[in-house]
Amino acid sequence: MAEAYRGVDVTRIRNGMRSIDVDRAATEEPLEVRLHNRPFSVIMRTPGSDRELAAGFLLAEGVLKDADDLGNIEYCTDPRADHPENIVNASLTNHSGETLDRLLAERRNVTTNSSCGLCGRLTIDSLRTDAPPLSASWTIAASMLVNIPDRLRAGQAVFESTGGLHAAGLFTREGRLETIAEDVGRHNAVDKVVGRMLMLEQLPLSDYLLFVSGRTSYEIVQKAFCAGIPVVAAVSAPSSLAIELAEDCGMTLIGFLRGTNFNIYSHTERVVW
Amino acid sequence: MAEAYRGVDVTRIRNGMRSIDVDRAATEEPLEVRLHNRPFSVIMRTPGSDRELAAGFLLAEGVLKDADDLGNIEYCTDPRADHPENIVNASLTNHSGETLDRLLAERRNVTTNSSCGLCGRLTIDSLRTDAPPLSASWTIAASMLVNIPDRLRAGQAVFESTGGLHAAGLFTREGRLETIAEDVGRHNAVDKVVGRMLMLEQLPLSDYLLFVSGRTSYEIVQKAFCAGIPVVAAVSAPSSLAIELAEDCGMTLIGFLRGTNFNIYSHTERVVW
Repeated sequence: MAEAYRGVDVTRIRNGMRSIDVDRAATEEPLEVRLHNRPFSVIMRTPGSDRELAAGFLLAEGVLKDADDLGNIEYCTDPRADHPENIVNASLTNHSGETLDRLLAERRNVTTNSSCGLCGRLTIDSLRTDAPPLSASWTIAASMLVNIPDRLRAGQAVFESTGGLHAAGLFTREGRLETIAEDVGRHNAVDKVVGRMLMLEQLPLSDYLLFVSGRTSYEIVQKAFCAGIPVVAAVSAPSSLAIELAEDCGMTLIGFLRGTNFNIYSHTERVVW
Repeated sequence: MAEAYRGVDVTRIRNGMRSIDVDRAATEEPLEVRLHNRPFSVIMRTPGSDRELAAGFLLAEGVLKDADDLGNIEYCTDPRADHPENIVNASLTNHSGETLDRLLAERRNVTTNSSCGLCGRLTIDSLRTDAPPLSASWTIAASMLVNIPDRLRAGQAVFESTGGLHAAGLFTREGRLETIAEDVGRHNAVDKVVGRMLMLEQLPLSDYLLFVSGRTSYEIVQKAFCAGIPVVAAVSAPSSLAIELAEDCGMTLIGFLRGTNFNIYSHTERVVW
């Protein structure tokens, strides 16, 4: 049984002092939900209560109406599966082959409010092979980094300042706010910033730092990686998978950037004192 | 051009005193992204920079590699569309019919890290007709409601208390914590709680209140509605669409539940003094 938290190495900066420590990050792993052994969806989740998660998800998706519709729901027992603990299979009562075909076909148009970027890939391993790691060799001074949150807030004030919206800002190496977007979805704010630069033919964004309000999950790192951004910083905590992917793809990942303090979770070499 | 915020009616409770006011809620509406006029995805988003959002989303999904791949990306011009401002169509350069077919087929397995529950429905209107509104007539005392956050935190302490995870708790009408779940995804925490009760054959959950950390978006309300929960409360702000759906489906929606203060956004009749 995977733990809800995982130990991670962190470089802590407190009032300019640096220390190496071990921290805990919320575990994030993909759960593949199958219907009668056919792939239905992949959910990025914290391991634990996976059968319940799948049952609740299938209810909200309209696949189940109540417990009577649910035959059983079990972890994968296929000996060929690499991570059977990340796969659950649900069977329905009173289903027909046609019903299943329809349910699976309807998934084509399923809504994603936060595009996760796994693109049907079921493991982080398959992403790793897609592109070479980020190799930008520029550095950013810790003293400049700590100004980023205030500069994002100043940019937000141009729009609206009462909160309720997530923000993402793209900053130059000199700490200047290049562009900003706000959205109820944190991932949308990142897509808006990246999409704007794409439409201006500015990709890859290898000379920029991305700052996001809130937490960093797998998909924030994945989106930044697709855009070629080598430094990502956030107000709050990263997930375990965000850290793993950042480490693997050559990205500097910074969390808890507040006041004069922050944590570096990967590729510390881009932050200098 | 839709605004990022929308005026909403709110009943404010401050230290036991009630007042009626107008507040602002972050706007949330579906954006349908089409590829060569074929449905590709629906994203719940705050209107604004929609073409950029779609471009960034298509990049992260691997559909685009850079600006050269993007022919154009424009709002829907189909005179039959009800909400052309919520539809953008992207065309790719150098695409073949086969490439498009493959891209659309791959959407079957697309990852949703936060199952939104729109289930391929493109408008809130199509959900409204699915089920009768919640009609539970029980009430909860304001004095009990303000204890809910502390009780959730007490329940969380059983797991882990350092944060980084969202929590959802199901409470009885008497304010007792029935069950709790934590996850990096707020929507997953709700699915886990609801799925657990479904597996115990306890649906519909018409005698319960759902409390969630963070914000309430459309899908949190939709998931609660599927489970028959008549009262949903949250630590932070609801989106405009969360409020609209709660109003329509007969749900009492409470936000900013902190200390002795909270706001009621819909069906105030279930809160008594």
